[in-house]
Amino acid sequence: MRDSDDYFNPRFEAQKIAFAPVVFHVALSLRNLGVLDALRKSRKLGLSIPQLKRQLQISEYGLSVLLELALLTGIVEQKEDAHFILTETGKYIELDPLTKVNFDFINDICYKGLAHLEESILKSKPEGLKELGHWETIYQGLSEMNQQAQKSWLAFDHYYSTDSSPELLQFLFSSAPKTLVDIGGNDGRFALNCCKHNPEVQITIVDLPGQIQMAKSRIEGSPYDSRIEYISMDILKENKPLPKADAVWMSQFLDCFSESEVRDILKYVGRQIDLNTNVYIIETLWDQQEHPASSFSVAATSVYFTTMANGNSKMFSAKKLRALINESGLQIIDEVFPIGMSHTLFHCKVKPV
Amino acid sequence: MRDSDDYFNPRFEAQKIAFAPVVFHVALSLRNLGVLDALRKSRKLGLSIPQLKRQLQISEYGLSVLLELALLTGIVEQKEDAHFILTETGKYIELDPLTKVNFDFINDICYKGLAHLEESILKSKPEGLKELGHWETIYQGLSEMNQQAQKSWLAFDHYYSTDSSPELLQFLFSSAPKTLVDIGGNDGRFALNCCKHNPEVQITIVDLPGQIQMAKSRIEGSPYDSRIEYISMDILKENKPLPKADAVWMSQFLDCFSESEVRDILKYVGRQIDLNTNVYIIETLWDQQEHPASSFSVAATSVYFTTMANGNSKMFSAKKLRALINESGLQIIDEVFPIGMSHTLFHCKVKPV
Repeated sequence: MRDSDDYFNPRFEAQKIAFAPVVFHVALSLRNLGVLDALRKSRKLGLSIPQLKRQLQISEYGLSVLLELALLTGIVEQKEDAHFILTETGKYIELDPLTKVNFDFINDICYKGLAHLEESILKSKPEGLKELGHWETIYQGLSEMNQQAQKSWLAFDHYYSTDSSPELLQFLFSSAPKTLVDIGGNDGRFALNCCKHNPEVQITIVDLPGQIQMAKSRIEGSPYDSRIEYISMDILKENKPLPKADAVWMSQFLDCFSESEVRDILKYVGRQIDLNTNVYIIETLWDQQEHPASSFSVAATSVYFTTMANGNSKMFSAKKLRALINESGLQIIDEVFPIGMSHTLFHCKVKPV
Repeated sequence: MRDSDDYFNPRFEAQKIAFAPVVFHVALSLRNLGVLDALRKSRKLGLSIPQLKRQLQISEYGLSVLLELALLTGIVEQKEDAHFILTETGKYIELDPLTKVNFDFINDICYKGLAHLEESILKSKPEGLKELGHWETIYQGLSEMNQQAQKSWLAFDHYYSTDSSPELLQFLFSSAPKTLVDIGGNDGRFALNCCKHNPEVQITIVDLPGQIQMAKSRIEGSPYDSRIEYISMDILKENKPLPKADAVWMSQFLDCFSESEVRDILKYVGRQIDLNTNVYIIETLWDQQEHPASSFSVAATSVYFTTMANGNSKMFSAKKLRALINESGLQIIDEVFPIGMSHTLFHCKVKPV
């Protein structure tokens, strides 16, 4: 019934989108109920519905409902003998850690809130966030939300994070900075990794009070305690002076702000540094990715910012971020892609006046 | 960035499913906010984001978030001049009535409840239904649910209904029945259409008390009142005698029951008829469709039965329904496909003992 031409036609594509939430939950149920795992282990032999029933104690009815749709969406295939086997897509859903992280993030953090997308756009507020709790932004709610949601959020954040990337650490320390300001330093993980990587560097973490609290509790008592300082502030509301530093690091920080906020932040940074300071801006750009699957995932993450996180930020395009940097008194010395996990690094300096 | 090979690869397919609820709401928002309509009217010229902003009073930020994901999922394309135009898929989402009905049905009836799919399968109960109200099955809740949900349910039901199909009426009356029993006759629409089509036929509608009530209020006072009788019963709990009839009609009725219930219903019908009675069973079979898009939509509808409707019924495969009919003492005289809107009609008689 299915050939590639027929599978990819406009009428079918439109129905796939109309029934997309159904396919999402069918795939998730097949994963969570252990059906994908059982099929994977059966390899090329596959399993029939009665065999799956015996093995997993799930009704033939339930298995049929799930597997028929899975068949029509390319998650499983059916052999001549009616045994089901996993397709390559099915294997990704069952085995690929990134796919798992994405599924759980959408299910536990975004699913209910996404229903408020239209409203979020019209009001420029993350109207979906109330489905998780009553906070202004998701960052304020992180420590209070239910455990499952918190776990899925952290797994997602961690997966896309640059905090432990050897490649980025090497890049940063190739210019041998002695002092570093990590703006949006979050829970201090990157600062700690810098200290481990380099025996001398002195770091100042800048972030919101809650994040600074987390960073302190992670760092205090560690051997690196004396090399790390903190500036606790809401960068949109106060512009405390930054210490003189060889490098300023902003990784996956600017994507949490609107365009005009980004300009304000970069101008503030520009005023705080001298002509020798290296500024590093690291982002995942939706239109600068190696695979269309990555572009898609990055662009889909923007919708999370809209409905759940803050209502006004998104993942940048390469062109847009370059323009924002240039409009804010900085100049791009070098642009490196790919680095980390499909990130782009902008090496900048302040423009001479 | 996008060519068909890259667009259709396992890694991307898996991410499309992981982020499927995001794509669903992006498409719906683009439709509801009037973006698709504006793009359609701009035809090949297309519209830029600033133009759309002026025309629709939606922020550039919101438009970018929506259109970037729409671009990566083939709902829109972007021209050299950065103007967006609708793709064929986008046109289906904006213009095709069936696609609209499917979208609204998933959004207003199924979206929240789908999160209870796993639970529904494990308990054989429509655990998602509580998101709409507290009833045992959705049929009991139809008149009480919120208006938007009711409207979307009825539009979906009506679209897939055979009640007004000239083709099916002609088929039924080609054997000139004088008496007809319409089991699962619902609100009486089909009975009325039969009376209009044929000046003589006498009809008995069999359904649940609530449905009979609706049918009566539709029929009483019409010119066909005297030709229509009613049997009010829950066919799973009582087996009242049926009047002798030339034909028994069961259209989209059996898909509301589990396999063992279907066997019981068909055996009961078999006991009530004689060797000359024509039994017509009409269903949409998920594996007997002209387009893969239709197979997909039918199979996705099964998941609605699981989580929202009753927790134990589904759309049949051709093989399964043939087997159920044969196991229940009926024989298939003829099988007609396609008829109506991609339906299959089984013309049956009782097997001579």
